[in-house]
Amino acid sequence: MEFQMNSAIKFRNNTKLLKKARQTKPKLLFKQIVPQKVVKVVADQRELFGYRAVSQPQKVTELDRLSLGKGDRIVLDLGDHQVGHFQVKVNSIGSPMDAPLWLHVVFAELPAELGTIHEEYHGLLSSSWLAEEYLHLDVLPSLLKLPRRYACRYIMLEVVDTSPKWKVTFSEPLFTAESAVSSKQIAELNSGDPLLDKIDQVSCKTLHDCMQNVFEDGPKRDQRLWLGDLRLQALANYATFDNQKLVKRCLYLFGGLTTEDGRISANIFTQNNPIPDDTFLYDYSLFFISTLADYFTHYHDTEVLQDLFPIAQQQIEQALQLVNQQGQVVLDSEWPIFIDWSQEFDKSTCAQAVTIYALRQFIELAQKMKISIEPYQVVLDKLTKFATEKLYNQQCGLFVSGSRREINIASQVWMALAKVLPPNQNHELMEKVLNKMFPVTGIATPYMYHHICTALFETQHSAEAIELIKNYWGKMLEYGADTFWEAFQPEKPNFSPYNSMAINSYCHAWSCTPAYLLRKYLPAEKNK
Amino acid sequence: MEFQMNSAIKFRNNTKLLKKARQTKPKLLFKQIVPQKVVKVVADQRELFGYRAVSQPQKVTELDRLSLGKGDRIVLDLGDHQVGHFQVKVNSIGSPMDAPLWLHVVFAELPAELGTIHEEYHGLLSSSWLAEEYLHLDVLPSLLKLPRRYACRYIMLEVVDTSPKWKVTFSEPLFTAESAVSSKQIAELNSGDPLLDKIDQVSCKTLHDCMQNVFEDGPKRDQRLWLGDLRLQALANYATFDNQKLVKRCLYLFGGLTTEDGRISANIFTQNNPIPDDTFLYDYSLFFISTLADYFTHYHDTEVLQDLFPIAQQQIEQALQLVNQQGQVVLDSEWPIFIDWSQEFDKSTCAQAVTIYALRQFIELAQKMKISIEPYQVVLDKLTKFATEKLYNQQCGLFVSGSRREINIASQVWMALAKVLPPNQNHELMEKVLNKMFPVTGIATPYMYHHICTALFETQHSAEAIELIKNYWGKMLEYGADTFWEAFQPEKPNFSPYNSMAINSYCHAWSCTPAYLLRKYLPAEKNK
Repeated sequence: MEFQMNSAIKFRNNTKLLKKARQTKPKLLFKQIVPQKVVKVVADQRELFGYRAVSQPQKVTELDRLSLGKGDRIVLDLGDHQVGHFQVKVNSIGSPMDAPLWLHVVFAELPAELGTIHEEYHGLLSSSWLAEEYLHLDVLPSLLKLPRRYACRYIMLEVVDTSPKWKVTFSEPLFTAESAVSSKQIAELNSGDPLLDKIDQVSCKTLHDCMQNVFEDGPKRDQRLWLGDLRLQALANYATFDNQKLVKRCLYLFGGLTTEDGRISANIFTQNNPIPDDTFLYDYSLFFISTLADYFTHYHDTEVLQDLFPIAQQQIEQALQLVNQQGQVVLDSEWPIFIDWSQEFDKSTCAQAVTIYALRQFIELAQKMKISIEPYQVVLDKLTKFATEKLYNQQCGLFVSGSRREINIASQVWMALAKVLPPNQNHELMEKVLNKMFPVTGIATPYMYHHICTALFETQHSAEAIELIKNYWGKMLEYGADTFWEAFQPEKPNFSPYNSMAINSYCHAWSCTPAYLLRKYLPAEKNK
Repeated sequence: MEFQMNSAIKFRNNTKLLKKARQTKPKLLFKQIVPQKVVKVVADQRELFGYRAVSQPQKVTELDRLSLGKGDRIVLDLGDHQVGHFQVKVNSIGSPMDAPLWLHVVFAELPAELGTIHEEYHGLLSSSWLAEEYLHLDVLPSLLKLPRRYACRYIMLEVVDTSPKWKVTFSEPLFTAESAVSSKQIAELNSGDPLLDKIDQVSCKTLHDCMQNVFEDGPKRDQRLWLGDLRLQALANYATFDNQKLVKRCLYLFGGLTTEDGRISANIFTQNNPIPDDTFLYDYSLFFISTLADYFTHYHDTEVLQDLFPIAQQQIEQALQLVNQQGQVVLDSEWPIFIDWSQEFDKSTCAQAVTIYALRQFIELAQKMKISIEPYQVVLDKLTKFATEKLYNQQCGLFVSGSRREINIASQVWMALAKVLPPNQNHELMEKVLNKMFPVTGIATPYMYHHICTALFETQHSAEAIELIKNYWGKMLEYGADTFWEAFQPEKPNFSPYNSMAINSYCHAWSCTPAYLLRKYLPAEKNK
């Protein structure tokens, strides 16, 4: 998906808000991880991605007994997905080293990344994201400490070249994992269902690995603060780690870096000084309101609300400019909507629903701020009226989308979440979805699956929601996921939005929401 | 050429001698070099190595006006060969960088190294010597300071990948050249012959670039202290930079790192703590004596003589164990002789001559040390007698070598240098060489050409020696040499001892000796 690129966009820095963002920068926690075992990655067509990691007899503590010559490689298995820094001692054996060591180090979340996938890379995203380094070591023994941060479970050390007179040994490999939070902070789910417990654990681990100096979308790739991801991460965070400062920091970053006309970028680069991207997404902008509202609901933090309400207001004002006389949201090609990676369904009804969803939350915030909500209530009514009268097909009981009156699942889900219909009709809407549109197809992200599940829970279809969580997230576990993935389409499991599985992120924050959904809705379900 | 490899060899460190080596470690001199121009390397079959550097219109001062996307490259030309460290400022242009920069940097002594030569590398030496780096830069702008030292004239900056949203610019490239000496220290030759003056200049530059913390063989590859190279470098140094400490340091390093039975390694690794190689060469061991004798002749430094004479004595004693009853040196396969890279001629008569050559110098040193020279004189006579009676073919007036009584140029040259024949016969010997063996063929190194020239000068064939210098070293200039090469065979100009021109060293100390030969012998020639 290519977003707009416009170098004419002018940003302004709100120093007061950015100062508050700096003040809430977390102190990362570090944990030393010794790789658990040596593995070999072998091709296996029965595996989803064509490769499998097979345990080798060598012990990691006796790694230095293995001497590696030109072309030899070993793969270390950390035992789980980790984010952080790697070091290893490197020595030579044989004659004195009469040439530098030429070393290739590859970090992989999945075994397949260590297969041929790198060599064949023709993905849409930059190959610079493939986590590999080529290094010359002139002097051995040497402690190799790589300066960059990696997200991985597997680390391949490949000797590109030595000389015929000496070989290489490795010892004391160590991975220093880092996160803003500790896994020890979370109570176990104890749902009584081992699969749900496992899904919850892996969700928490996914969130944990994405909680760094900001809520990152994925620690392998992008490593960035995206607003759409932040909204879901924050919800999962309230239910688990409950780290208030990190959410606050991210809200202040977005609030402090708007365009001159007050728009919020879809994401912020935070490696160094924060830089807003020149990408703007309609739904993501509105989710600033949602994230602020969710934050306020959880913490009742009036300082943050007062600081950021004006920014939230700017977002809704910008969006409402796109509402026509009939109460219809008419999107601008300069401000596209995301909803899901799939480009194969019409998203205009989703835009209508997301606007209603965010406007409702905005009105709640406006009430807290004690400003007049009347003009907003008028637009909300118009928007809702257009949705129920023009987009809802009474006959089939579903919402249509676009000039071709397409019926897609995303429209129903977002309309259900926006609660445009009264509760009983909303229940029936999702009942229809279950009857006519399940099993779900054509949806490529856990992000959209999250919204389907939420819509089911919110319309009293908890059993079906739980079933969907088990089917969808459980399927990733079956395929060997240590953390949940950026993209997954069960009916087309090796789908990549970027035309290459090598570049997909296999620990992606927006897929962590079962931890939120299960903790929020499961107790009610149990008490039935 | 594969030398012996034996992990059972035990070395002993002479701490007294090594301390003196440490005390004479030079303080390197640094010079900042701004690249002179931007060039493009183009294939050109008329060029010796198939490639040529073509000047480009861009100015180095306006480098940042060039923006480079995926696959783009620029080549900077330093204007001359340099040894040192490189830095350059890197920035992005366009949208904020949404992926790391994946950069490939290649350092080349010749344009051809930037051609396809790297990709096709199948040479005998480790590909780890090819001076290239692959780097990820996560944050731009950034000052890229590469930590390794390079020998190069050309620097290629190749953008492996960015993203479609931004490009890369470079600015303020800077190369910090380093050497133990300054070119300003040398008076010009002023021979009256522009070609000889140019050969002398390039010889001095070659030596300059190899004078680092030790006398290195070549700053591109090996980067090591070899004894055979040291002997010639020291001679050229006396005639030019006259850096006493560096020779002293290298002698102490060899003397301080012998095997338990007193043998000297052919070379020492000096990147970190000095480590002797497990390679032993018969002639190189004996050249410890020659280098010490030359040093003493030049500086009359009795402290160094007294410290190192015992080591010199060990070398001659080891060699003389190989002399049989008839006075013949019978080499051991464990202790081969080098003489030249070519493996196509018999080297046994060379071994006889080198032994005589070194023994003569040893006897001179022994006299200074006031120890009895008589037993050595006896062996010298035996060796000489065997040479004149068994190896010298009276009929043709040339020396034969090996069981097949081969007549090769190296045998004549080394016998001439060893002065086994009286002066008039020695003159005739080289006269015969000139008549029967010129133009020289089958010799692959400036190292052996140096000995041919010396033998000509020493037998009153100065004009022919000068002609040979002009033909041989002058030919490298014609091919565009900025510094003289490790290997060059005029009749087979793209010869590589390692089966790849990419791995040859194009600034190699043993090729610097015209600076010595011309300064030593030219004045006498002029005064004739």
